[in-house]
Amino acid sequence: MSSRSPTLAERLATKGRRLSEDGRFSYEEVQLALRNRGTPIEALRYEITPSGLHYLLTHFDMPEIDEGSWRLEIDGLVGRPLSLRIEDLKRMTGVTEPVTMECSGSGRAMVQPRPVGQPWNLDAVSTARWTGARLREVLEAAGVRPGTVDVVFWGADHGIERGEEHTYARSLALATAVRDEIILAYGMNGEPLQPQHGAPLRLVVPGWYGMASVKWLTRIEAIDRAFDGYQQYPNYHYRQTPDEPGVPVTAIRVRALMVPPGFADFFTRARVVKAGRTVLAGRAWSGFGVGIARVEVGINGIWRDAALGSQPGRYAWRAWRYEWDAAPGEYELVCRATDAEGDAQPVTQSWTVSGMGNNVVQRIQVLVRP
Amino acid sequence: MSSRSPTLAERLATKGRRLSEDGRFSYEEVQLALRNRGTPIEALRYEITPSGLHYLLTHFDMPEIDEGSWRLEIDGLVGRPLSLRIEDLKRMTGVTEPVTMECSGSGRAMVQPRPVGQPWNLDAVSTARWTGARLREVLEAAGVRPGTVDVVFWGADHGIERGEEHTYARSLALATAVRDEIILAYGMNGEPLQPQHGAPLRLVVPGWYGMASVKWLTRIEAIDRAFDGYQQYPNYHYRQTPDEPGVPVTAIRVRALMVPPGFADFFTRARVVKAGRTVLAGRAWSGFGVGIARVEVGINGIWRDAALGSQPGRYAWRAWRYEWDAAPGEYELVCRATDAEGDAQPVTQSWTVSGMGNNVVQRIQVLVRP
Repeated sequence: MSSRSPTLAERLATKGRRLSEDGRFSYEEVQLALRNRGTPIEALRYEITPSGLHYLLTHFDMPEIDEGSWRLEIDGLVGRPLSLRIEDLKRMTGVTEPVTMECSGSGRAMVQPRPVGQPWNLDAVSTARWTGARLREVLEAAGVRPGTVDVVFWGADHGIERGEEHTYARSLALATAVRDEIILAYGMNGEPLQPQHGAPLRLVVPGWYGMASVKWLTRIEAIDRAFDGYQQYPNYHYRQTPDEPGVPVTAIRVRALMVPPGFADFFTRARVVKAGRTVLAGRAWSGFGVGIARVEVGINGIWRDAALGSQPGRYAWRAWRYEWDAAPGEYELVCRATDAEGDAQPVTQSWTVSGMGNNVVQRIQVLVRP
Repeated sequence: MSSRSPTLAERLATKGRRLSEDGRFSYEEVQLALRNRGTPIEALRYEITPSGLHYLLTHFDMPEIDEGSWRLEIDGLVGRPLSLRIEDLKRMTGVTEPVTMECSGSGRAMVQPRPVGQPWNLDAVSTARWTGARLREVLEAAGVRPGTVDVVFWGADHGIERGEEHTYARSLALATAVRDEIILAYGMNGEPLQPQHGAPLRLVVPGWYGMASVKWLTRIEAIDRAFDGYQQYPNYHYRQTPDEPGVPVTAIRVRALMVPPGFADFFTRARVVKAGRTVLAGRAWSGFGVGIARVEVGINGIWRDAALGSQPGRYAWRAWRYEWDAAPGEYELVCRATDAEGDAQPVTQSWTVSGMGNNVVQRIQVLVRP
């Protein structure tokens, strides 16, 4: 065996996924955490997350796109291939939908042993009002032909991930792609789409984890087979061992989060609350438009039901609140959501090879002072 | 000695600053990296950083402010204490200034041994066009009295840092506070100030590291002594040992950054470039309005001068570019700025107790393929 260091070319060709056993993080993970921002947890107070606070996960670089020469190509198994400008899309029926989007890797930093990658805490979730054309109307205009299995959405972002060079792309089964709620979005919160959110055009797939909502769209392709690009397979699958085929990541799993009460310690984010009546409040959501049936608040292990509040749309989170008469002492606050299909958040950590779909409950350390 | 774990109250009272020797990071540091976002390095391509991409450092939580009842109080050693609404400030002379702002902790994640805290990479720098009233006009209206030493700027953000509970506040010496370029900003990039950037009003101190530009302003207080609040002292000082008084952090140190060429590897952010003519480009800046005199590009240790380009304002960064005829192989790319006063970036790491003012050169690993 040679003891020389691997060359850069060799390192870029490395395919494996590493696990970290010691609970500590590498420089590369911190570098990703700084690029791929979460939404600061107190911003849960906004029913619609301000655009500049929406979470971001960008696998490669944000691409540089000249909107003048940009076109959306629709091709593959279609009767009428199309090449559309943004103005063409704006002439179609406009739709605006509030959508809660979450990264499927949310909570990865809390998993033990930890799959090394983007180390999300619980803050990779936000809600925006997306405005655009219905995907279905575009597919109908192109005339998707019989035999189509998948519709593939190609972004403009390109790079290497686990040794594989590729352009970011994801597919939806045709039966999903024609659903009413799927948007080709050119607007966000009443403003033009910002570069980091996929300008000039992104896909928004309500109810799904964020990887489905391809940014910087350039091409929609109808194909006669299941798409197997890297971000479709092997990535974004639930697996218990690295070699099993796994189950595709799709719907957002049920979760509740709480705006931490009181004020924070800078480094630990532990909280200090003044004794007395304290409102505990937050948001809860579940994927595929499944509503929230119940939110419970746990205070040092005693669970009580929270009151459910407003929900800006079928695919958006629902407010909840609970009034706590806080006596001096030290507390662990927890919240747990159950959706209309009876799915409840786990109180202990589940584990997958890639650290996805981790919807364990949030825990907040609180000191109540007289 | 008892072996029990410290209580939360004891942990919140802990004053010390820790060092990490092993190059790895804690969960708390990652938690801060996700809250306190950098600007993705490729966004250096924008002369004015899109607002939603501007870097953010928030010590505590973003406060919740009701703009209707919000007032800016100007008091202390003044002849006419004032209580101003945003409309009052908008009636004063408006000024718009492009300002490059950088966190003084930029680069802390690269320091060895590392002061534990917000683990910035090199991405805590952005440029925005700030719009507001001149601080000087407000101070003149209030009639600052003789004997005033410092002008203190109080934010609305409150919490605990290294055991000390306080509201975020910073001061400027009176002679600095009356300088023309200092803005009480209610607008950013032609839009109303976003909550995370300090709405409804923040201070912007061009040429200084970002800690001086207090967000969520509520009060401006003229005092007859040097302010000694936590964020003024002991925080934000350069020190070689924990016990020395140190030197206050003020002007942004000279630095150049490069938009990484080619495309990225997701995890390491190493780059792949196709052989041939490649434009290497970026921005360079220095504090207190000191201009950039020179940017050099190092390619595997060979240094060459880059061409300097546009600069949107005295207190903003300057563009630079260098055309590289890239032959296949592996490279380390470096860029280094020198300002008009002859200060140049260090090529090796300097060290301070709190990891501030670290302006070591950026290094980018590149594989050039045929």
